[in-house]
Amino acid sequence: MIKDKLKVFIENKYVTNFILAVIVYNSIALGLLTYPKLCDICGNFLQISCDVCVIIFTIEIAIKLYVYGKSFFKDGWNNFDFILIAMSWIPTGGVFSSFRVFRVLRALRALRLVTRLQKLRLIVQAIIESIPNVLWACLLLLLIFYIFSIMGTTMYGEEFSDYFGTIGKSMITLFQMVTLDDWAAGVARPICSIHPFGWIYFVSFILISSFVVMNVIVGVIVNAIGEISEKSKLMRERKNRKLKTDLERELSKLKRQIAKVELLMSDVNTEASDK
Amino acid sequence: MIKDKLKVFIENKYVTNFILAVIVYNSIALGLLTYPKLCDICGNFLQISCDVCVIIFTIEIAIKLYVYGKSFFKDGWNNFDFILIAMSWIPTGGVFSSFRVFRVLRALRALRLVTRLQKLRLIVQAIIESIPNVLWACLLLLLIFYIFSIMGTTMYGEEFSDYFGTIGKSMITLFQMVTLDDWAAGVARPICSIHPFGWIYFVSFILISSFVVMNVIVGVIVNAIGEISEKSKLMRERKNRKLKTDLERELSKLKRQIAKVELLMSDVNTEASDK
Amino acid sequence: MIKDKLKVFIENKYVTNFILAVIVYNSIALGLLTYPKLCDICGNFLQISCDVCVIIFTIEIAIKLYVYGKSFFKDGWNNFDFILIAMSWIPTGGVFSSFRVFRVLRALRALRLVTRLQKLRLIVQAIIESIPNVLWACLLLLLIFYIFSIMGTTMYGEEFSDYFGTIGKSMITLFQMVTLDDWAAGVARPICSIHPFGWIYFVSFILISSFVVMNVIVGVIVNAIGEISEKSKLMRERKNRKLKTDLERELSKLKRQIAKVELLMSDVNTEASDK
Amino acid sequence: MIKDKLKVFIENKYVTNFILAVIVYNSIALGLLTYPKLCDICGNFLQISCDVCVIIFTIEIAIKLYVYGKSFFKDGWNNFDFILIAMSWIPTGGVFSSFRVFRVLRALRALRLVTRLQKLRLIVQAIIESIPNVLWACLLLLLIFYIFSIMGTTMYGEEFSDYFGTIGKSMITLFQMVTLDDWAAGVARPICSIHPFGWIYFVSFILISSFVVMNVIVGVIVNAIGEISEKSKLMRERKNRKLKTDLERELSKLKRQIAKVELLMSDVNTEASDK
Repeated sequence: MIKDKLKVFIENKYVTNFILAVIVYNSIALGLLTYPKLCDICGNFLQISCDVCVIIFTIEIAIKLYVYGKSFFKDGWNNFDFILIAMSWIPTGGVFSSFRVFRVLRALRALRLVTRLQKLRLIVQAIIESIPNVLWACLLLLLIFYIFSIMGTTMYGEEFSDYFGTIGKSMITLFQMVTLDDWAAGVARPICSIHPFGWIYFVSFILISSFVVMNVIVGVIVNAIGEISEKSKLMRERKNRKLKTDLERELSKLKRQIAKVELLMSDVNTEASDK
Repeated sequence: MIKDKLKVFIENKYVTNFILAVIVYNSIALGLLTYPKLCDICGNFLQISCDVCVIIFTIEIAIKLYVYGKSFFKDGWNNFDFILIAMSWIPTGGVFSSFRVFRVLRALRALRLVTRLQKLRLIVQAIIESIPNVLWACLLLLLIFYIFSIMGTTMYGEEFSDYFGTIGKSMITLFQMVTLDDWAAGVARPICSIHPFGWIYFVSFILISSFVVMNVIVGVIVNAIGEISEKSKLMRERKNRKLKTDLERELSKLKRQIAKVELLMSDVNTEASDK
Repeated sequence: MIKDKLKVFIENKYVTNFILAVIVYNSIALGLLTYPKLCDICGNFLQISCDVCVIIFTIEIAIKLYVYGKSFFKDGWNNFDFILIAMSWIPTGGVFSSFRVFRVLRALRALRLVTRLQKLRLIVQAIIESIPNVLWACLLLLLIFYIFSIMGTTMYGEEFSDYFGTIGKSMITLFQMVTLDDWAAGVARPICSIHPFGWIYFVSFILISSFVVMNVIVGVIVNAIGEISEKSKLMRERKNRKLKTDLERELSKLKRQIAKVELLMSDVNTEASDK
Repeated sequence: MIKDKLKVFIENKYVTNFILAVIVYNSIALGLLTYPKLCDICGNFLQISCDVCVIIFTIEIAIKLYVYGKSFFKDGWNNFDFILIAMSWIPTGGVFSSFRVFRVLRALRALRLVTRLQKLRLIVQAIIESIPNVLWACLLLLLIFYIFSIMGTTMYGEEFSDYFGTIGKSMITLFQMVTLDDWAAGVARPICSIHPFGWIYFVSFILISSFVVMNVIVGVIVNAIGEISEKSKLMRERKNRKLKTDLERELSKLKRQIAKVELLMSDVNTEASDK
């Protein structure tokens, strides 16, 4: 059947390596396209080769879709690939030319490398799996951000509209403060020279947010170590169970031996009393 | 009785969800109130709806106070809720209009979300419980801050009054240095261009304080891991004890069997010697 | 004897608490002395009370020296106290008035709080004990600093004498870079706009130094956890040894019982064969 | 033989200490050579003494090469030494005088201290051994850098050519953002005042990259702890195995005793039935 032949073809080592090479070439070409001088010389070639790459990717995905059917979408990585390729077909010329964002998102195609290299997939999966552990802590952080940004906008919104003009601007300023970038010299000192009690706001925000962030990081570390020790505990338990069963087997053998002695004994006894 | 009926009512799933929705709406409305343009259009509606929210919260707290009586204040979260609501009733108009701080503290009402969502409560409790472990280290840090701020004020207070004018200003500058924000370019370089030996002060403060902070963080991590391993140790001990008691039971059975053999034996012996 | 009486007196709870209060008062007074306006009003009183504090401290140390003799200097904390008090007697007036540093070092007297509060002593001891573990890593870091500062001085010393004028200035600039403060905007960008390959120098320094620092921190964490697990391992071993000895005792009892059975058996046998 | 004598000579404690002293002197001299005033006074002496040091190092390496032969290059540290010394012989005058880089790389000779001090070697080896664990994560980070730098160059390359002019400049700017240095005040705020949606780009980059970096650090910590617990597990297993074999030996002794009893029993039985 043609389906089986296509499956053998698409899972062929040479074919997958060829696709990998196309992805690497495409990534490099997308980088080269950002150099205007280079585009003047061989821009057309680069642009056309990128388009060819997209066509190759599309054919690959089409074959996979035909071969695997609905089960194709069960793997998260396949969905990721599919969305990346689909996005490449959004027209960038004509009425869409103003949406420079689609031209920018082309660069995401280099992420297909992650789906192809086993090691990178494992790292990304580990990172994604660690997200649920910190999700609630992030919600807490978001709530703290929201409350402090309402406060900041109310207090400093009029005078310092660049930093605290709206809730959104306040949240960006608070994010800048969490990263400890220029928070004192750039944000807090100018404001606190007018509002001397502003230090309570800024210092308490930095203390609270960095304390929460520290707890999140500690949580991630402890979780990761907990998983390791969980594994080693399971192995130890299996070992202990084996030790226990070994001992029990020996003991039951002993008991059987003694029971035999007892039986012989009672025989002797009976005979002795018979006489 | 009316007390029981009210208790059933206030612990009803639909009622608690309704209160949760009111809290979320109130949080959003407080955020929207910071947009002046939006206030011009529907400021009255937002303001009134916020007041309605506060009335709903007050009724809820009042019912709870009536239902649970004194035991209401035994839960820290209830106290927290009570203070937040009580603060909402402080008049902001009239003679109090100059105290903009009370209008700002309204934003804290969004924190009631934490008391309502179990997961957030657990995280906050874990964070609060980790504070006593670092309290003494924080006292040490405060002492270091105090000593260095006395030194800084004595040495640089006159020339650089913005940074080291008073003990308070010095402490804020030192806090800025602990967060490593603009410490060299903004604070240390201008001062050390006049006082060349100032680097000893600044570098030693950064080394000492970051070393203490590092030790605090390491302490928190080690504590958290210690608790985990403590738990797993308890479980292991229980397992070991079970293993031990199992073995002992088996051994005592064996002993009893052998004792029986011994008894039979001596019977035989007696009989044999009788003959 | 007077020596014993003095020992009882100096170790008396009320006396130690009084000394603690004097230390706290002295610390606060030293802070208040930095406010010029306050000094104008009651500067003489504060200054004299501080001198009285020093006299009280000196009497305390003198009594301790008399009571404990040479063993006084065996405790590191006592030495620390002695040096702090001795430093207070260095004259600050007259020819010494130009050495403002001694006036500054007075602030260190607040550190005597650490020697008095058990908890703080433990934390400081733990921090001091963790130093040897990182000492060699610090030497490595110093070597990296030294090599990069020679390189920096050679390459940028002439053009950017503020940052890389001498080995000392280079080391301070590199220390600023390790703390990641304003390294790009303030130091690297201006230099690299002239020397485009300077990025190799700056980026490699940051990568190498932060990698070494990260390894030092990881080392400290792993060490601290190692100590904990070492302790729990010792306890587990003791438990295991107990389990083992218990089992061995039971087994030897069994053996003795069986040996008895054997003996009885051979008796029977002998008798049986006798007949 | 002369080879053996040379081997004894080169491995002599006094000779190795002399070489160590020469390395330290050379390191200090290289530092002193960066002070122009000092060079005017005794520059010739310093320069000549440095050359003498290089000659001593070369003789040492030559003897080692003769003594150990090909096995000399099997040790990584020897190769490192060899390259450092070989680099010292690259002429810096004449046509090469424009390559100031070789004069700069002289400073690396101080790294020979690492090859001589056991403790430093161990730390460096530990750091080098921890690299493979983070290599794939670094590749992932590089891929993220590459994708974001293509995006940045496409979006902001024309208007902000200092920060995002080329892929290279973008990567340096992104590296600056990863170190959180002046990212908001210096880079993001000026750009986002023109492109308001730029915050999505900057904040997402910081969140993603710091999340990946955090995972790398957590991975290093967990790895280091895993190795420790692996070792302690092996020791525990050996202990458990010993406990097990001890118990088994005791049990087999018991079995043999009981078997003996059984044998005696059956003898009695046979005799008894014989009668």
